[in-house]
Amino acid sequence: MMDDAGLPEDVPLAAVRRGELVESVHRGRFAFCDPEGSELEVRGDPEAYVYLRSSAKPFQALPLILSGAADAFGLTGEELAVACASHNAEEPHVAAVGSILEKAGLSEDDLQSGVHPPMYGPAAAELIRRGEEPRPIHGNCSGKHAGMLAVCVHEGFETLDYRDPGHPLQRRILGLIAEVCGVEEDEVLIAGDNCGVPAFALPLRSFATGLARIATGEGLPDRLAGAALRIRDAMRAFPFMVAGTGRFDTELMERTHLLVKGGADAVLAVGDPEGWGMALKISDGSHRAVRPVALAALGHMGVQVGDGDSIVRGLHGETVGEIGPLI
Amino acid sequence: MMDDAGLPEDVPLAAVRRGELVESVHRGRFAFCDPEGSELEVRGDPEAYVYLRSSAKPFQALPLILSGAADAFGLTGEELAVACASHNAEEPHVAAVGSILEKAGLSEDDLQSGVHPPMYGPAAAELIRRGEEPRPIHGNCSGKHAGMLAVCVHEGFETLDYRDPGHPLQRRILGLIAEVCGVEEDEVLIAGDNCGVPAFALPLRSFATGLARIATGEGLPDRLAGAALRIRDAMRAFPFMVAGTGRFDTELMERTHLLVKGGADAVLAVGDPEGWGMALKISDGSHRAVRPVALAALGHMGVQVGDGDSIVRGLHGETVGEIGPLI
Repeated sequence: MMDDAGLPEDVPLAAVRRGELVESVHRGRFAFCDPEGSELEVRGDPEAYVYLRSSAKPFQALPLILSGAADAFGLTGEELAVACASHNAEEPHVAAVGSILEKAGLSEDDLQSGVHPPMYGPAAAELIRRGEEPRPIHGNCSGKHAGMLAVCVHEGFETLDYRDPGHPLQRRILGLIAEVCGVEEDEVLIAGDNCGVPAFALPLRSFATGLARIATGEGLPDRLAGAALRIRDAMRAFPFMVAGTGRFDTELMERTHLLVKGGADAVLAVGDPEGWGMALKISDGSHRAVRPVALAALGHMGVQVGDGDSIVRGLHGETVGEIGPLI
Repeated sequence: MMDDAGLPEDVPLAAVRRGELVESVHRGRFAFCDPEGSELEVRGDPEAYVYLRSSAKPFQALPLILSGAADAFGLTGEELAVACASHNAEEPHVAAVGSILEKAGLSEDDLQSGVHPPMYGPAAAELIRRGEEPRPIHGNCSGKHAGMLAVCVHEGFETLDYRDPGHPLQRRILGLIAEVCGVEEDEVLIAGDNCGVPAFALPLRSFATGLARIATGEGLPDRLAGAALRIRDAMRAFPFMVAGTGRFDTELMERTHLLVKGGADAVLAVGDPEGWGMALKISDGSHRAVRPVALAALGHMGVQVGDGDSIVRGLHGETVGEIGPLI
């Protein structure tokens, strides 16, 4: 259900408390689905669209496996994981991205991932100390772009315009997302992501279903199931490469058996290899609400990681509040 | 009206659009009131409480004037403005805070404002380049703390425990906030702010009324009116000192005749010297929604600053979306 302004129906999911009061509140939606698309638990409207943003990266990496590029270039598990990453630009991330490019016969100059300072504060500070400007390889999406470029080289596609929605690689990714999530291609809405490649939007329920299929391999034709499980296993084997120090995706994969990939504007994709996928969107795009809501929602599905409360500390280290789930 | 979870009634105020869809939405509340407390325009529940956070700084600076400390120490307009600031720690801010301390016979060692990197990226980078750690004087609240310390010295209050809610200065500030906003002291709820001094919560309507009084001097006894207008005039005369490069408070004061002070978790206080105050709270605490919502709301009151739309750009400089008001 959408209201007059085109806003999906959502519900309060987390409260930021300070003293006796709720200071701020975060609304949102989530859906748990099995590989057949059946809803296991839902809050808010599961049919309304959500931009997958970087939570699409495991889907966007499928052509690396399916094309044979990963094998042809001898990509390692760490390199496959960083191709699915929103990474911190810590040294292992930058090294792995550089290695993908080198194996594909390319260089940093071929990356069109845009420039922003490393997400990890100490990595950003280290660049400043060295008197260096951030480069595209430091962008959190550089592994995805390196993976895309490797597919282009392997397939003989043009590498100069690989970001274009009409480029054969981007058309292939669109087809794969539609197929894995069980929708028609024209049901996938496309806009621009901040790093310059297509951003995909789907109904929340279809997104959750696709995650269930990526995480389990179920509900997919054999060629896709094998590729999905190889992506899943690389991310699970190298959770640091998918995000990095202090990041929730890395923490949650290290502490559980789950597949986890967050995205900008507070999207989270989780897949349980034992049978379901979850898609979460905090309506206001606030990252701080993702962890407490996700841990509480996972608890409903029997995955106990903690109670989801997060202490908010002041500058003197004192407790000034907490962010807790409302579910 | 509060729902079962203690959440105030709010309304959608801004939408983040990407491509054909609303990607994210920000809800909130605002109230415009005149100095008598009459509501001029309201969205959401005006009676529900809101933490003033740093929007309280103009109130917290009143004792500087009322005690005579500002005159005794010969504080300049820039120094009064930085005492009301959430500043960027650019060189003029740090110099003004240092000057307040020096005039009061104190030093940086007396500041208990806590440590965080300068809010202004280039100032933070400059510290790193110089191999220096951030100090309390770089904290955005250091001017407020320096002002509080100056009052303590002038009044003969203890300076070691000035952050304590029971300290005579903090008791005095509580009394002033209650008096200016037209509520009883026990109606003001107190918690800890992140910089370690009390954070005050009031009904949104009372907060807006207090701002109308600070901005106009109306509805206040003479001693308070004079102090309020002196604070207002210092902030209006030196908008850079209140925030800094690229900051909305500074921009809005430079472009209008208004008094403007933002606060953490997306609070905004605006006062029109010609007759009203506005208090705004974005329910989810997202700073990005403050500007478009404030500009749209101000437009309703006849203050035309722009249409409130803000382009969201990708890393290649291209337009990927916009944040626009829903009011």
